Amino acid sequence: MKLSRLGEFGLIERVRRATPRGRGVRLGIGDDAAWVQTRSGSCLLTADLLIEDVHFDLKWTSLYALGYKTLAVNMSDIAAMGGTPAYLMLSLGIPAAFNSEDVDEFYRGIRSLSVKSGVALVGGDTSVAKSLFVSACLVGQAPYRPITRGGARIGDDIYVTGTLGDSALGLTLLKRKSPKLSAQRAAKFLFSRHHFPTARVRVGATLAKEKLARAMIDISDGLLQDLSHICKASRIGAIVAEERLPLSSAYRSLAGADGTRHALAGGEDYELLFCARRRDRSRITKLEEVTDVPITRIGTCVHWRDGMTVLDRTGHRVETRTAGHDHFKPL
Amino acid sequence: MKLSRLGEFGLIERVRRATPRGRGVRLGIGDDAAWVQTRSGSCLLTADLLIEDVHFDLKWTSLYALGYKTLAVNMSDIAAMGGTPAYLMLSLGIPAAFNSEDVDEFYRGIRSLSVKSGVALVGGDTSVAKSLFVSACLVGQAPYRPITRGGARIGDDIYVTGTLGDSALGLTLLKRKSPKLSAQRAAKFLFSRHHFPTARVRVGATLAKEKLARAMIDISDGLLQDLSHICKASRIGAIVAEERLPLSSAYRSLAGADGTRHALAGGEDYELLFCARRRDRSRITKLEEVTDVPITRIGTCVHWRDGMTVLDRTGHRVETRTAGHDHFKPL
Repeated sequence: MKLSRLGEFGLIERVRRATPRGRGVRLGIGDDAAWVQTRSGSCLLTADLLIEDVHFDLKWTSLYALGYKTLAVNMSDIAAMGGTPAYLMLSLGIPAAFNSEDVDEFYRGIRSLSVKSGVALVGGDTSVAKSLFVSACLVGQAPYRPITRGGARIGDDIYVTGTLGDSALGLTLLKRKSPKLSAQRAAKFLFSRHHFPTARVRVGATLAKEKLARAMIDISDGLLQDLSHICKASRIGAIVAEERLPLSSAYRSLAGADGTRHALAGGEDYELLFCARRRDRSRITKLEEVTDVPITRIGTCVHWRDGMTVLDRTGHRVETRTAGHDHFKPL
Repeated sequence: MKLSRLGEFGLIERVRRATPRGRGVRLGIGDDAAWVQTRSGSCLLTADLLIEDVHFDLKWTSLYALGYKTLAVNMSDIAAMGGTPAYLMLSLGIPAAFNSEDVDEFYRGIRSLSVKSGVALVGGDTSVAKSLFVSACLVGQAPYRPITRGGARIGDDIYVTGTLGDSALGLTLLKRKSPKLSAQRAAKFLFSRHHFPTARVRVGATLAKEKLARAMIDISDGLLQDLSHICKASRIGAIVAEERLPLSSAYRSLAGADGTRHALAGGEDYELLFCARRRDRSRITKLEEVTDVPITRIGTCVHWRDGMTVLDRTGHRVETRTAGHDHFKPL
């Protein structure tokens, strides 16, 4: 059905009916505001924009994947504070040519992750727009003291969860549109990492609960860019060992001449990057076992004046542009 | 300065520096998520989109006014629940041709109202976009039980705050671009009502505190449209007396042949529309005195099957299209 026939209120009603009432939701979609419970007397708030032709291209992203990813990337921000994602507010700008089925597909993507993660969609806004954009605001619970970017100290270890570069390499391969390549298992893995990122909520919350991480951020703009945010906020420098970067076997088999470029500066990993005391190494290893998420020590915090360095296995400096995404800077 | 030179992080830093740290903000702009206090263990959430050429036109809206209005319309939603606006998350899609001074002007508009109202800007997202849009999410405190749209009963009185139609008539006159007209005091008043709406936070909160309103909504899409939302949620009908509609003297002097059309269906009034028991009339009158905001009884709740009717002073039915804004329906 054309959205112009369904109308704004018809669309809202359709979304309301398809949305399960979540835990802690006292009043969900359909009034002037949603009314939700917070457990600790404080909460976390994060927001992300996803704009067509800036953050995504419908040529290689389905609306289902876009919905899923919208929630996942916001959950990742809450995870990076050590919080628990709880309530989603979702605003959509939709081109008039879209059908209600298109919008349904987007919300199905949202729902598939919200059901798994216990996040409730509680409200938002919709409007016609020239091109598609998604604006999400996610409220998280903060049962433990949130972990900021600003607490790392000289001598701390630097860790990342999961593997790096899969998403960026996956996008690069998607753009090549090679049917032969796309049939490969390794490529499929990378595509899936690009479309369906995993927010590391449990790892983040445990790091907060056990006061293990002194500074934390999620990697959305590329390892180096996001590490630079920790460096700036904590007033430290960092040395990263290139050979320690956790790379998936799919990445290793398909990166070719790109080497570690996507892992260092690709972006959209949505893995956690955090700093912890040297004396907590065994506790971090234990956390890896308990959560079944790979956690890799990739470097060390050094003095601010030493800046950020990536060293290869022979101890030579790897040439890195301080790349990463900046949506206003021309490429 | 061009935004492409300032960059995304430069812009965020600029906004962060210009933003006063608000009450209850434990961590504001600049980390993965903001961390804020909630007093009652629950909170209210509302979101609004403002899209260029759909909700506003920069030909007759300054960026300062747009900023002010962005916060005001979201505050109005929280007011309509009887809550207190507290924390603002603000996401902006900005055309690459904008200067950082343009963005500054927008944030000055936000700031002028946030300082007055005690709302703290705590985060958001920014990106380049084809045309300007603003996506806001506002968190409110709920010290009293929120007032929904669903509690009105047959026989209840229907009230509105302030005056109706000023904003819509103001916009109509702005579009005429008549210098002679624009110099008139009455026109200036209407323009100001359009650009700088007043969220009725104190009235809303008092109605919630004293459990006076049984159902409430703010008038954003026009009196009739928003009254129909109350009727649907409360399963009632409504009779409105046209002669009781509160009209400003500016409206009366400039509406001409439009009569009460803008007051009934114009939209963007951001006044409160609520239903209360007949026996509470004197308490409502007292509230009007205490808050110094006009509160006018305009009608009565009737049986659902009688629908919604507007009667003129002779008791005849006023022809009303169930107009009001629907951003997907063609005009």
